[in-house]
Amino acid sequence: MSASQEWFDEQSRELVHLESIMSMLGWDQETTMPSSGAGPRARQGASLAALYHQRLTRPRWSEVLGELESTELDEWTGAAVREMRRKYGRATRLPEALVRELAETVSLGYEAWVAARKESDFESFRPWLERILGLKRQEAACLATGDCLYDALLDDYEPGMTTRQLDPLFSLLRPELTRLLGKIQEAAHQPPAELLTGNYPRSAQEAFGRSVLTAIGFDWKAGRLDVSPHPFCSGFSPLDVRITTRYGEDSFVSSFFGIVHEGGHALYEQGLGGERYGSPACQSISLGIHESQSRLWENQVARSLPFWEYWYPGLRKSFPGQLDSVPLESFLRGVNRVEASLIRVEADEVTYGLHIILRYELEKALLDEDLPVSDLEGIWVERMREYLGIVPDNAADGVLQDTHWSQGLVGYFPTYLLGNLYASQIFASARRRFPDLDSQFSAGKYVPLREWLREQIHSKGRTRTAGELISEISGEPLDSRYLLNYLEGKFSRLYRLDG
Amino acid sequence: MSASQEWFDEQSRELVHLESIMSMLGWDQETTMPSSGAGPRARQGASLAALYHQRLTRPRWSEVLGELESTELDEWTGAAVREMRRKYGRATRLPEALVRELAETVSLGYEAWVAARKESDFESFRPWLERILGLKRQEAACLATGDCLYDALLDDYEPGMTTRQLDPLFSLLRPELTRLLGKIQEAAHQPPAELLTGNYPRSAQEAFGRSVLTAIGFDWKAGRLDVSPHPFCSGFSPLDVRITTRYGEDSFVSSFFGIVHEGGHALYEQGLGGERYGSPACQSISLGIHESQSRLWENQVARSLPFWEYWYPGLRKSFPGQLDSVPLESFLRGVNRVEASLIRVEADEVTYGLHIILRYELEKALLDEDLPVSDLEGIWVERMREYLGIVPDNAADGVLQDTHWSQGLVGYFPTYLLGNLYASQIFASARRRFPDLDSQFSAGKYVPLREWLREQIHSKGRTRTAGELISEISGEPLDSRYLLNYLEGKFSRLYRLDG
Repeated sequence: MSASQEWFDEQSRELVHLESIMSMLGWDQETTMPSSGAGPRARQGASLAALYHQRLTRPRWSEVLGELESTELDEWTGAAVREMRRKYGRATRLPEALVRELAETVSLGYEAWVAARKESDFESFRPWLERILGLKRQEAACLATGDCLYDALLDDYEPGMTTRQLDPLFSLLRPELTRLLGKIQEAAHQPPAELLTGNYPRSAQEAFGRSVLTAIGFDWKAGRLDVSPHPFCSGFSPLDVRITTRYGEDSFVSSFFGIVHEGGHALYEQGLGGERYGSPACQSISLGIHESQSRLWENQVARSLPFWEYWYPGLRKSFPGQLDSVPLESFLRGVNRVEASLIRVEADEVTYGLHIILRYELEKALLDEDLPVSDLEGIWVERMREYLGIVPDNAADGVLQDTHWSQGLVGYFPTYLLGNLYASQIFASARRRFPDLDSQFSAGKYVPLREWLREQIHSKGRTRTAGELISEISGEPLDSRYLLNYLEGKFSRLYRLDG
Repeated sequence: MSASQEWFDEQSRELVHLESIMSMLGWDQETTMPSSGAGPRARQGASLAALYHQRLTRPRWSEVLGELESTELDEWTGAAVREMRRKYGRATRLPEALVRELAETVSLGYEAWVAARKESDFESFRPWLERILGLKRQEAACLATGDCLYDALLDDYEPGMTTRQLDPLFSLLRPELTRLLGKIQEAAHQPPAELLTGNYPRSAQEAFGRSVLTAIGFDWKAGRLDVSPHPFCSGFSPLDVRITTRYGEDSFVSSFFGIVHEGGHALYEQGLGGERYGSPACQSISLGIHESQSRLWENQVARSLPFWEYWYPGLRKSFPGQLDSVPLESFLRGVNRVEASLIRVEADEVTYGLHIILRYELEKALLDEDLPVSDLEGIWVERMREYLGIVPDNAADGVLQDTHWSQGLVGYFPTYLLGNLYASQIFASARRRFPDLDSQFSAGKYVPLREWLREQIHSKGRTRTAGELISEISGEPLDSRYLLNYLEGKFSRLYRLDG
């Protein structure tokens, strides 16, 4: 092995280890840390992040990456080199002063957003958003390789994706989703809103969630389930992957689908292949591909009829008396209820994409200065009316509902919808591979699907781009029609739209 | 502020932060990490430790420390500089090859010890112990400033302490403890062995333990109580201090006194003063002083009559029916039962010191090659007979019982007994300061004592050596008679030795 290759392996492994440790500190803070610990923890994290940045920007990287890039490399080493080039490039192209100013601004901006949302007062957050957008424009200008600022930011979350690819995908979706929503709203059969509320003790919810995680192949020796205010999944290595949820006792719906959603993320992390851990190629491809794994298990699997044919008797037993008068068919309609609503995180499968497209369009226009921040609140209301047919009567339920922009996360929103697009296209391939998928689900068998996902996606780490992976699995590029067909088919049946 | 001072502050703070993070990783591994995570975690920890070592041995330390040492410094900066000199000296005097060989040898040696103890086969561990001792001799030779190898190792755990100080302290103690044990064994009133066993549900044990921790002033906003196979206390900062225990349901004794013991450690860590966190002077003085805080709360406070005058009714209520027929006086004798036993970690207050002195004498002789490892097992049995009057009939209950030597911890044992000596001498001063201490305890008031300890010890960090601290608090150097007087007084009453 060449000296450069050896240096590369050792140094990139160290960086991966430090990333895992930073992630561990974050997990502990969200789930476990006593409240007073936050101040010292922030300083510990800042020291580690500074050390990480120092190690990532060592001048020798440039030389070593250059040398390896001119060498014939195997698939995994090539992917590792590509990934380190990306990280090194981003870390060295940003001036330290900008990084510091952005960090300080979003820290204060986040506080301002929390206060503004509480008061539902967009005006008090507006100057912060202007400042943040100004800095993000500078960041994008440093990072941009082409002429599109937005692409430079998007690339951080979804490497290789561009607005040129997203625009047609979303343009096709938007009117079709609005149209489907209209048909559903006009349907005669509407599931009652309060059908699934009742008395759902936390311990029984947790036990039921754990048995479903076990059935879909979550490895408990390499993972945990805990509680945190905001559910998430963290992988410190493929052999230590932790998910969280939160429980409300009047309904199991949000916590249960949250567990399956995070479980889908966790299966991806656990499937990355522990023996390769330490290589920058042994990581997930993008936020969108990650989200496809969570959405696929949450929606395509766990909101399906065959899934509940197997699990509904067990669910009823877990919560005696709560669901006796709810037949399976009504139950299924209950967990798939579609409704135009104001809040993105509570949106169903049909309306979710509309919330994202709205945000995508607005953040692009904000970044390009085509939309002044002072017009944002008005435009938000207008678009909500156009896409979803409802309008918020206050900023907290409208433009202030999401934390992302206050934290400088511009270009992040599209990855949520990409997750749904990828999931539908991947799941269509899974159906081709397993013509009997529905009978597997109704027999409680989910491991064949997990194994197929592991083989097709998880175990490949970052050796493919998201685009390459999708083409490889489905034989064609990403196409919005997979999601539309899936939604049309599913909700036509559930709402008897053709009946 | 000079450039050196600025560099010193920044760099030493970074090292403290990294130490906290390493400690956090260890805590997670013991309490939380799923089992498969161990391999990757070890590699993450090794990367961080290597980075720590690199930063600690940067050549500029030598220059900066030299410059600061020739400057007039305030108390806290002076202590921080002394501490960094100590750490830098230890880190730079040890050749990297020796550090690596020692790490590898103790890792394998520990495995060998686990297997040997299981089989009670000292011979299979013997070559490992010889190898470890050989490497520890090399380590001590690199570190030694005087001519005593043992002192060089002891200094790592108890800075400034020497065999020249320990020998007379322990020589006075040894025959006196043996004599007191003999008197107790001859006493007419012996508490029955099974008095306190019964049915003690874990949740009630935990609730009772938590209420005692609250009463002694444990800050729950800056701490946690969890479960681990081996109880311990970790402070990641004074604002995040975590203790663990383990529960057995046939008795509350071991878990309860374990909680109070670790709680004493935690009060020390929480009392170090969060605002100074990041300075190398804002840390505990030594293992012995740390142990004094745990022992004081465990023994001087929580095994006393006034303590149980307050808590015994609550304990009885926590475990309905278990203690109805045990009057307070019998109960107190039960939790203070003295018995010559084979196992150090189960030893009572009287015999504990004898177990330590035996180990101290033997490890000194082993290190100095005055005792060949091949004679160790025989000498162990002989000394047990002499000091405690009993002998193990197998190595697992004898020379193989402790993990320390297998992990290269030579010079560590004395700090346990020093903890008891310091605790007695400190507690005697507390009694002078609070003549009504017993009535405080029987009224459930422990915070005045905690405040006094905080003011006298905790808040001073490392600005004193252990010796300076003890002289400052008690007006005289460390003296074994404080422990002897405390034990004589307490056990004469409990066993009615003069009656």
